Amino acid sequence: MEKLHVAILGATGAVGQRFIQLLENHPWFEVTELVASDRSAGRTYAEAARWVLDGEPPANVRDIRIKPLDSDLEAPLVFSALPKEAADPHEIRLANAGHIVCTNASLNRMLEDVPLLLPEVNAEHIALVDVQRARRGWTTGALVANSNCTIMPVVMSLAPLRQFGIEKILIVSSQAISGAGYPGVSALDILDNIIPYIGGEEDKMETESLRMLGSLEGDLVEWLPAVVSATSNRAPVIDGHLVNISVSLKSQPHLDNILEAWAKYRGIEPIPSLPSAPVEPVHYFEQPDRPQPRRDRNYGKGMTTTVGRLRSCPLLGYKFVALSHNTIRGAAGCSILNAELLAAKGYISGFQPVVTATKADLLPA
Amino acid sequence: MEKLHVAILGATGAVGQRFIQLLENHPWFEVTELVASDRSAGRTYAEAARWVLDGEPPANVRDIRIKPLDSDLEAPLVFSALPKEAADPHEIRLANAGHIVCTNASLNRMLEDVPLLLPEVNAEHIALVDVQRARRGWTTGALVANSNCTIMPVVMSLAPLRQFGIEKILIVSSQAISGAGYPGVSALDILDNIIPYIGGEEDKMETESLRMLGSLEGDLVEWLPAVVSATSNRAPVIDGHLVNISVSLKSQPHLDNILEAWAKYRGIEPIPSLPSAPVEPVHYFEQPDRPQPRRDRNYGKGMTTTVGRLRSCPLLGYKFVALSHNTIRGAAGCSILNAELLAAKGYISGFQPVVTATKADLLPA
Amino acid sequence: MEKLHVAILGATGAVGQRFIQLLENHPWFEVTELVASDRSAGRTYAEAARWVLDGEPPANVRDIRIKPLDSDLEAPLVFSALPKEAADPHEIRLANAGHIVCTNASLNRMLEDVPLLLPEVNAEHIALVDVQRARRGWTTGALVANSNCTIMPVVMSLAPLRQFGIEKILIVSSQAISGAGYPGVSALDILDNIIPYIGGEEDKMETESLRMLGSLEGDLVEWLPAVVSATSNRAPVIDGHLVNISVSLKSQPHLDNILEAWAKYRGIEPIPSLPSAPVEPVHYFEQPDRPQPRRDRNYGKGMTTTVGRLRSCPLLGYKFVALSHNTIRGAAGCSILNAELLAAKGYISGFQPVVTATKADLLPA
Amino acid sequence: MEKLHVAILGATGAVGQRFIQLLENHPWFEVTELVASDRSAGRTYAEAARWVLDGEPPANVRDIRIKPLDSDLEAPLVFSALPKEAADPHEIRLANAGHIVCTNASLNRMLEDVPLLLPEVNAEHIALVDVQRARRGWTTGALVANSNCTIMPVVMSLAPLRQFGIEKILIVSSQAISGAGYPGVSALDILDNIIPYIGGEEDKMETESLRMLGSLEGDLVEWLPAVVSATSNRAPVIDGHLVNISVSLKSQPHLDNILEAWAKYRGIEPIPSLPSAPVEPVHYFEQPDRPQPRRDRNYGKGMTTTVGRLRSCPLLGYKFVALSHNTIRGAAGCSILNAELLAAKGYISGFQPVVTATKADLLPA
Repeated sequence: MEKLHVAILGATGAVGQRFIQLLENHPWFEVTELVASDRSAGRTYAEAARWVLDGEPPANVRDIRIKPLDSDLEAPLVFSALPKEAADPHEIRLANAGHIVCTNASLNRMLEDVPLLLPEVNAEHIALVDVQRARRGWTTGALVANSNCTIMPVVMSLAPLRQFGIEKILIVSSQAISGAGYPGVSALDILDNIIPYIGGEEDKMETESLRMLGSLEGDLVEWLPAVVSATSNRAPVIDGHLVNISVSLKSQPHLDNILEAWAKYRGIEPIPSLPSAPVEPVHYFEQPDRPQPRRDRNYGKGMTTTVGRLRSCPLLGYKFVALSHNTIRGAAGCSILNAELLAAKGYISGFQPVVTATKADLLPA
Repeated sequence: MEKLHVAILGATGAVGQRFIQLLENHPWFEVTELVASDRSAGRTYAEAARWVLDGEPPANVRDIRIKPLDSDLEAPLVFSALPKEAADPHEIRLANAGHIVCTNASLNRMLEDVPLLLPEVNAEHIALVDVQRARRGWTTGALVANSNCTIMPVVMSLAPLRQFGIEKILIVSSQAISGAGYPGVSALDILDNIIPYIGGEEDKMETESLRMLGSLEGDLVEWLPAVVSATSNRAPVIDGHLVNISVSLKSQPHLDNILEAWAKYRGIEPIPSLPSAPVEPVHYFEQPDRPQPRRDRNYGKGMTTTVGRLRSCPLLGYKFVALSHNTIRGAAGCSILNAELLAAKGYISGFQPVVTATKADLLPA
Repeated sequence: MEKLHVAILGATGAVGQRFIQLLENHPWFEVTELVASDRSAGRTYAEAARWVLDGEPPANVRDIRIKPLDSDLEAPLVFSALPKEAADPHEIRLANAGHIVCTNASLNRMLEDVPLLLPEVNAEHIALVDVQRARRGWTTGALVANSNCTIMPVVMSLAPLRQFGIEKILIVSSQAISGAGYPGVSALDILDNIIPYIGGEEDKMETESLRMLGSLEGDLVEWLPAVVSATSNRAPVIDGHLVNISVSLKSQPHLDNILEAWAKYRGIEPIPSLPSAPVEPVHYFEQPDRPQPRRDRNYGKGMTTTVGRLRSCPLLGYKFVALSHNTIRGAAGCSILNAELLAAKGYISGFQPVVTATKADLLPA
Repeated sequence: MEKLHVAILGATGAVGQRFIQLLENHPWFEVTELVASDRSAGRTYAEAARWVLDGEPPANVRDIRIKPLDSDLEAPLVFSALPKEAADPHEIRLANAGHIVCTNASLNRMLEDVPLLLPEVNAEHIALVDVQRARRGWTTGALVANSNCTIMPVVMSLAPLRQFGIEKILIVSSQAISGAGYPGVSALDILDNIIPYIGGEEDKMETESLRMLGSLEGDLVEWLPAVVSATSNRAPVIDGHLVNISVSLKSQPHLDNILEAWAKYRGIEPIPSLPSAPVEPVHYFEQPDRPQPRRDRNYGKGMTTTVGRLRSCPLLGYKFVALSHNTIRGAAGCSILNAELLAAKGYISGFQPVVTATKADLLPA
């Protein structure tokens, strides 16, 4: 199988670097084009990027010459790691020109016909691509978004509980600094400190969560009819957003039923067999002091949401803690998994990967 | 006025050191006896203590020879910074022997006749000293406790709102490492990390809060009839416990009414005139990203509870963030203020300080 | 005595804020004008400055309206907290217009006729003000600089050892993030990390040290004839630059002679009596693990250089560790002390403070 | 090939956990016995160990029941992660009983007949095993040590420079907290701080370095005849010891010669083909601000020493920065590599692995 060519918008930023790192040895996709701001355009990636992840930039991208933001691209698949302002109008322009655009930007995330896709949770939302193609006159192009990085562990841990009737959700986050990009948070602001505010974050958490957990009714996503209260904090943690969640559930299940729902949670085929899908979308820790950002953010190669401390909440009924790697499952890794699902479902014209085997045999008995 | 002699139990630990630091130049009290574990007993303080606060141990304690835990003491006033296990039976023994014991330990905190005193909030609970004296046959002795350090900013910020009818309280904390004493938290556990669990903490927060906010009815404290859900996290912060609070208030006041309640909050006389009382028990920050532990824990010499981000909570009605210095207002500083109130109220036999002036003129107009 | 009016250039930055904080209750100086970039000009300080120090901006500056960089100023004394690029041409322009400019910027620091003043160490260099006035035709104006913040603890701790014949100096620093200003160092770069490089820093340390330790010969500073090797590292520390120093001394003194030289070190009168002068310019810690940045940076209100671990160096003869608060003694505090010396010495036209008393009686016996 | 059974002494500690993690899928070795203090003995590993590394303890050790320290063991190969005091007398006892003991403890490290083995640097020191067997009457037993974790990056980066005549070495370290074990360093000591002292560390660095860089002459290691000055600091970094090194070299090579010596440095066969050997023992970073602990400690799976910033030192001639992962290359990983070399060289009775292929083809051209 020849690999699909891939372009990355915003390739020099923190999330762009994470895309490059995760795609280095991807079995289906190959990075061939890199796009960044005018300041970087024309230089090779090795020259232009200040690499902020571990080690050195992968050899396969070092000599790629960076294209400016308004370039026409050749790669059929485009990942966008642009900041919100820069995403406009390029994401729409490229989808319009026939590219599959999987974006991490918040710009177009809440458009009615753009799926806010989290494969295990709402794979059926992918049908919005048909809606957008019909509505916008696109044939091969598409625009698929992934959510705010902080709501990710909330949605992943609550999705298996929809069967119990989610009514109220109260979230207090402790978010890693990498969520603010690079250079992002000043060290003077966060060392030996907590910042109890992140602009715009709480609104996104309160709305995107309900849309992602909603169901597709005809051409529209019907939001989950629950009430959400979200509070955001920035903490001196490199990667990994931790959320304390209280939730009320209509059917008042026993705690064991919740543990079982998490343990059995997979996603419908072919999701468990996609290259970037974790064996366990949700993993529960028995130890009372886990999950912890530094020790557990890389669980399942950063694609598993880890949960712990399930117990009664005197006010809402249930409470627990959840954690996701914010730049892997919460950003680049999710976009890649979304693209894998699009490919497996035949949405990428001229590219049909063979989804060889289920990972189910990897599961603990 | 001759200063009152003071002994400190647990003088070599982190809270003991804070007592020593805060009492260095105290206008009423003078440290004359230091008590610690057998390992330290017999050595001078300078020899025995590994000083973990700034600079060096104050000159006035360096040469004091440490007494063992089971010593008889001379000082009329005793501050206890002992861990829970070590407090038994010495706090009761010393109160029984006629000493005023102001304790920071959790051991005897919830005894029915021990006031869990926070002067601005529940000065009238001090009458429990009369109850305990009558009941236990003490004449000059007394045992007065202060609360868990994490519930302190909750109680201080909610006390002015009792007038609105507090019904439900949901708290998620982000607690400093100094709350665990010294050596306490291992650096390997907390650097670049959050630990979403502190053993026993949530229970204390859910009960002590209601007792402290309660009213004295005859010989008993009637707890505030509210429901509390508390969640504890440890964060890589040296000092300062930050709490995200959601609260439902029966009378549904306007946000401005809450701001006004905080701004006007003092305590009854003579509290505002006590040496360790802050000018503002509660200070509200207008900036959206304050209070922050590192920048605001020392507000009001560490005795003010700072609050911020008052806004609507979609679930409980109101939410905001609060912060207190956990080893000053949340521990040693509160014990000292409690002792000042006991002295001003005539509970310390043979010692009647002159409370010279109100600090009211220090207040912003 | 009426206080001298003072202007601060770069008032909204991290060092500018420190100037404001240190001058809040200064007995001689009063902040009346604030100058910053065009972005801030025209707004009040409370509106324009994002306060990054503790608490809130002092009341005395909140309503001062910020002037643009190219303003003519009224205050006779000007403190410059400008970044290097912005300092040009304003520092020279203002000195030329008759102002006393005490600068923290590196721009003009190594000009032959600009004293790189550290009062205890090289008070006689102040005579360069006469040289610059003569040479440049200034009557009341002057330009006085203080050094790079990292070389400060080196120079302060080595100055008392000049009597032993300093020949070689090897320095390895561990520098706080506040040395890079605000926002300065990205948290993603420094949390759980050390950066073994700070652009331009090592050169400054190797040259400024020798000029500061040099002696004034006629109109010129004759540099100390020693060889310096400096290595810079950035560490995850808020304030306080720590330096490991190895030094060779010609006369090979006993370690006790060095300890005595430090203990006796003051500065010539009137320096010990200036308002911002520390009681001890150099303080030695006996404990083997001190000084430490977090615990000792505020020693002597941040104006004392603390040293420790004096021992033999198998290569250079002697080694020890030294620490200074980089934004107090290493920046704003030093500029203020320089201005106090200029005032006491009669260099500020029309302003002659009464240096009331020596602090010598504050010294330990 | 059947895997060789392996026991781990001190299995529940931080270095013990690292041994378990690194051996989880080792091609030659299989963990079958775990030994720890009496407190843990008798319990399964999952019960006894508080896992402080990422995720959860590997499945292959969870149910192994821990043996007490004085047990007789079955595994031919024993890795010791014991603290110094606990190592006595068990390491000698087990070697005496016929086991190959690869130890990370400092207890027996400097015994004349115990090789302080670092394969790429001093593989020939392995002949001391023959010496110890002859001298002590051992047939299958052996005791092989690895060095202090901080000297590791010094020795690895200097070994390729022995050809230039090393004369003087000045080292200033910035050491990670994991070097102190678990719980080890208190968070209250190290957050926002540097501790300029680690007990006993500097002595070890000054002696072990010269022994490791020495040559075997008959039955003795002749130490490298150089002078070393070492200074230790503890920094708020999880893993990765960084050292600033100044060195004088007799033949005064050009900087390019040094870069070339590092780039070409391997070890003699079969070292580059051993399972745990890195492709590059030493890797030089061109970027001026690398290597950095957090970003580069895992280079070469934590077995590569990374270096950077090679430049002139005004005092000693050359200076640069070096970094090693202290619990991988500096502890468990090095012991495992040592055991692999012992196996490949036929020192482990009854176990002769097939060293299948060189990794040389993995090298960049």
